[in-house]
Amino acid sequence: MNESITTAKDKLDPQEGPETGQARQAATPGDGREGRADIGVTGLAVMGANLARNFARNGYTVALHNRSRARTDDLVAQFSEEGDFIPTETLTELVANLATPRRVLVMVKAGQPVDDVIEQLIPLLEAGDIVIDAGNSHYEDTRRREAALAEQGLHFVGVGVSGGEEGALNGPAIMPGGPKESYQALGPLLESIAADYDGDPCCAWIGTDGAGHFVKMVHNGIEYADMQVIGEAYDLLRRVGGYEPAEQATIFDQWNRTELASYLIEITSDVLSQVDVETQRPLVDLIVDEAGQKGTGRWTAISGLDLGSPIAAIAESVFARSLSSQTAVRAQAQKTLQSGLDEADVARLAEGEDREAFVEDVRLALYASKLVSYAQGLDMLQAAGAQYGWSLDLGTIASLWRNGCIIRADLLDTIMKAYGGRDTERHPEPGTVAEGQPLNLLFAPEFTEAIAQAVPAWRRVVARAVAAGVPVPVFSSALAYYDGLRQDRLPAALTQGLRDYFGAHTYRRTDREGAFHTLWSGDRSEITA
Amino acid sequence: MNESITTAKDKLDPQEGPETGQARQAATPGDGREGRADIGVTGLAVMGANLARNFARNGYTVALHNRSRARTDDLVAQFSEEGDFIPTETLTELVANLATPRRVLVMVKAGQPVDDVIEQLIPLLEAGDIVIDAGNSHYEDTRRREAALAEQGLHFVGVGVSGGEEGALNGPAIMPGGPKESYQALGPLLESIAADYDGDPCCAWIGTDGAGHFVKMVHNGIEYADMQVIGEAYDLLRRVGGYEPAEQATIFDQWNRTELASYLIEITSDVLSQVDVETQRPLVDLIVDEAGQKGTGRWTAISGLDLGSPIAAIAESVFARSLSSQTAVRAQAQKTLQSGLDEADVARLAEGEDREAFVEDVRLALYASKLVSYAQGLDMLQAAGAQYGWSLDLGTIASLWRNGCIIRADLLDTIMKAYGGRDTERHPEPGTVAEGQPLNLLFAPEFTEAIAQAVPAWRRVVARAVAAGVPVPVFSSALAYYDGLRQDRLPAALTQGLRDYFGAHTYRRTDREGAFHTLWSGDRSEITA
Repeated sequence: MNESITTAKDKLDPQEGPETGQARQAATPGDGREGRADIGVTGLAVMGANLARNFARNGYTVALHNRSRARTDDLVAQFSEEGDFIPTETLTELVANLATPRRVLVMVKAGQPVDDVIEQLIPLLEAGDIVIDAGNSHYEDTRRREAALAEQGLHFVGVGVSGGEEGALNGPAIMPGGPKESYQALGPLLESIAADYDGDPCCAWIGTDGAGHFVKMVHNGIEYADMQVIGEAYDLLRRVGGYEPAEQATIFDQWNRTELASYLIEITSDVLSQVDVETQRPLVDLIVDEAGQKGTGRWTAISGLDLGSPIAAIAESVFARSLSSQTAVRAQAQKTLQSGLDEADVARLAEGEDREAFVEDVRLALYASKLVSYAQGLDMLQAAGAQYGWSLDLGTIASLWRNGCIIRADLLDTIMKAYGGRDTERHPEPGTVAEGQPLNLLFAPEFTEAIAQAVPAWRRVVARAVAAGVPVPVFSSALAYYDGLRQDRLPAALTQGLRDYFGAHTYRRTDREGAFHTLWSGDRSEITA
Repeated sequence: MNESITTAKDKLDPQEGPETGQARQAATPGDGREGRADIGVTGLAVMGANLARNFARNGYTVALHNRSRARTDDLVAQFSEEGDFIPTETLTELVANLATPRRVLVMVKAGQPVDDVIEQLIPLLEAGDIVIDAGNSHYEDTRRREAALAEQGLHFVGVGVSGGEEGALNGPAIMPGGPKESYQALGPLLESIAADYDGDPCCAWIGTDGAGHFVKMVHNGIEYADMQVIGEAYDLLRRVGGYEPAEQATIFDQWNRTELASYLIEITSDVLSQVDVETQRPLVDLIVDEAGQKGTGRWTAISGLDLGSPIAAIAESVFARSLSSQTAVRAQAQKTLQSGLDEADVARLAEGEDREAFVEDVRLALYASKLVSYAQGLDMLQAAGAQYGWSLDLGTIASLWRNGCIIRADLLDTIMKAYGGRDTERHPEPGTVAEGQPLNLLFAPEFTEAIAQAVPAWRRVVARAVAAGVPVPVFSSALAYYDGLRQDRLPAALTQGLRDYFGAHTYRRTDREGAFHTLWSGDRSEITA
C-alpha cells in the first residue's frame, strides 16, 4: 500500500481504499510508468490550494497544477513541510504523475473554465479514471458533464464543498455525487479531509450525477434563509426591543447555548460586538446594507419553482437581498412612502412591557422560521429525487451538515436523528423518504412539539413586526407556510373556480372523480369535461 | 387597396397598412401569382380558430391551415358567413395564398412544435415576410427564433395574447414584440382584432425580439398574484368575518364598484354565488382546493430571480399554488401541526366587533397588496429592459392591459396615466423609465396616497390573520416589501458582516469608498481589500 495512503487510511477504515502501491518516483509524461500521486489538483487559487494542502496534511501525495506556474511554486515553497507535493507544469504532466485510477480534482471558476479543463483532460485519461469538479457548478452542468464523460468510460464526480477557505484547509463538509462505484476509490480520500462530527466524516456519497452539487446548492439556499432570519431577529431586537448591537452580542451569545446553537449565531455575536476603531461606532452600523443575490441562493429558489416545491421562505431570503440592493428605489421610498404608524416610536416596546419576554419571543420566532426553511429545503430534495432519479437519504445528508459547513449546528444532528440517523447504505426510492422517516421535517415528533411550543410567540412577533412597520419577510412567509399546510381548506378552490370561469381550465370535485366545467357564460350548468 | 384590408383599415387610420392590391383569385403553389390572403393562420385549435375568425370578422381574408385538414374544413363549414376564408391543405399552399409581405400566424403548442413549423416555413418565405408566434412561448425561445429568422431576412414576431378563448374571438389584449419595422405591415391587422379601451386598441408594439412574450408572461405573473390576493381576502372574510360564499358574492359585487373594479373581482362574485345543483352547497366548497403552477406564473418568478428584481409577492402566489398541491403533506399536516391558538374559534370576530369595518379593512389590504404586485411586475419589466436591451414604455404597456386580458381593470388606466399616458412613440432608454415617469409605481402620487391611506388597515388585517392562523402569504409578503423599501437601514448590513466573517466576501462602508475586510480570525483590525 502506498505509504501516504496508508497514513491516511489508518485513520479511517483499513478495509477500504486502494490496495496496492509502494512509494514510486515522480513520473514524466510518456515514460510508461504509473505515477505515484494519490490525487492531482488543478486550479490553485485559495480554495484549490487549501484542498491540496488538506490532502497533503492527511498523508496523501498531491500532484499540483495551475494555469500559471507561479502559484504552484508558491504553494510548494510555502507549504512543502505539510506533506508530499509534486508540482507539474502541464495537465499532461499532472496526469502522468497520478496512480491509477487517476483522480483529478478540478477547482476552477464555475462555467466554461470547467468545460475547458475537462476537454483537455479527456484525451489524457483512461477508463475508470475520475474527474472531480469541486467548484460551485450548477447541477444541470454536472449532469451534462457526467453523461458526457460516462460515454468515454470516465467517472465524473461533482462535489459540493462547504466551509469557505478555512473549511477547505481544515475540514469542510463534502457532498460528492457521481457514479456510486467511483466512491470506492475517491470516498476515502474525501472523507479523510472532511470535517467530522462525533467521529463521522462530514462526507458521504449523495447520489448519481448532479446530486452532490444539488445538495450543496440547497445547503446554500438554507444558509441564505438562516442569515435572513438572524437579520430579522436583529432588526426586531433593535427597533422594537431597543437593544443596541453590543447588547445583542450578549443576547446572541446566550442564544448560542440554546437549541439555536450554531456557527452563524456564534459569529453573529462576534460581528455585533465589533466596534469600528475609527468612529467608535458599532461596525454593523457602518456597513452598507446592500446584499447581493447571485449563484447558489438564487439557483435554489429557481430550482424550487421548477420542481413545484413551496420553498417560499428560502425565496423570500433571496428577494430580501435583491430589495436591499435597489439603492435608487430605496432612497426615494424613504422620502415618499408613509409608514401608516401613528407616531415615530410606536415600534418600541412601551414602558411597562417585559423586554426579556420579547427577546424570548423573537428567539422562538427565529427558531420556528428556521425549522420551516429546513423543512422546505428537505422538501425540495425529495422533489429533486423524483425529478432526477436520485435516491437521497435525508438522514445522511443532514449528518453531513453537522460540521464543516456554514450552517453547521447541533440542530442538524437532531434533524439527522429525526430521519433515522446516518446510514450511508440507505437509499430510499427517488422522490420518497425511507420507511420511518417523516414526510416533512415538521412531522418528526420532536419538531412538531418544538414548533407547537414556539408558535404562539411566533404569531406575537410577526403581528408586532407588522404593526410596528418592521419588515420580516421570512418570519411571516414561514408562518404562512405553516398555517397553509395546516388548513383543511385553502382558497385555491376559488382560484380553480376562477380559472374555470375565464379559461375553461376545469376543476375537480371533492365528492366525485372526474374533471368538471361550469358553463359560466351559458346556463351555468355543470358538465363533465 | 385590397378590399378586405380597406374594410378593416377604414375603422382605424387609412394612412397606414398595405397600400396596393385588388381582389385576386386564390393562388396555387408555383403558379407565379401572389396570393390574396391578408394573413395565414396555421394551428386551428380553439385559440387559432378564434383568432382566424376574429381577423375574418374584421374584413381580412384569412388563409387557413391545420395539420389535420378536418379542423380547417369544420371551421369553414361553420363560420364561412363570418368572412373570407381560404382553406389550404399544406403550409406550401397556405404561403402561396398570401399577399406580400406574407404574414403567417402560428398558433401551435409552445416548445418544439413551434420550431417544427418555423423550419417548414423558412424555405417557403422570402425576405420581408413575417412569421408570428401567438402562443405562450418562453421569451428566451422567442429571442432565439427571432435571431435565427433575422439571419434569413425574415421577421419573427413573438406576440403575447391574453383573454382566453373568448378574448381571441372578440378582442384580446395583444403584446407584439419583434423588429419594429414589421409592425408597419402587421400592427394594423393586430390592432383591428384587439380589444379597445376608450377607442385605443389594446395592442401596440412592445419592443424587439422577445419583449412581447416577456410582457405577456409578466401579465400572467400579476394575474397569479391578483387571484391569490382575492383568495386571501375570501379566506379572511370567511374564517374571521364569518361571511358565507353567497354573502361574499354581494361583498365582491360591491367591491367591484370601488377602485378594485376589475374582471377578476367581477367573476369572483359570480363564482361565489354559484350553488351546486346536486348538493345545494356553494360550488366553491366542492372544488378541490389544489391549484397547479406551471408555465407563465412560474416563469415570471424565475425570471424575477434571474433579473434580481424583488418580486416576492408574485413568487408567493406561485408558491401558494405549489403548497396547495402537496396533497399528502397537507393531509398529514392537518392531523399533526398545532395551531397554537387558544381555542378553535379564536379566528372569528368577537361579538362586539364591527364586521363592516373588518370587511373594509380586508378590501384595503387586498388593494394595497395588489398595488405592490403591480409595482413588482413593472419593476421587473425595467430590469428586463436593462438585461435584454428593450426600450419598454410602462405607460403604453399598462394601456394594453386595460381591456381584453384577464387582469383588465380601470386600475390599469390609472396606472397608465401615472406613467404619462399611452404614447407608442415613447421609448425610454432600456432599464430606465422616461422623464416624468415614476421609478416605482408606488411613487406615483395617486398610489403613494392610496397606499398610505390603506396601510393602517393592511397592518391590522395581516396582524389579525397571523393571530388567527389564517395564511396570507401575499398580503404579508407585499407588506414586507413595502416596509422593506421604506427602511433607512436594513439588516442586510449584518448579512454582509457575516459574509465577510465566514467567506472574506468584504463589505463596503457608508462613510468611505472601497471594499473592506475585517481580520475576524486575527486581531480584528480592518484592512482595505
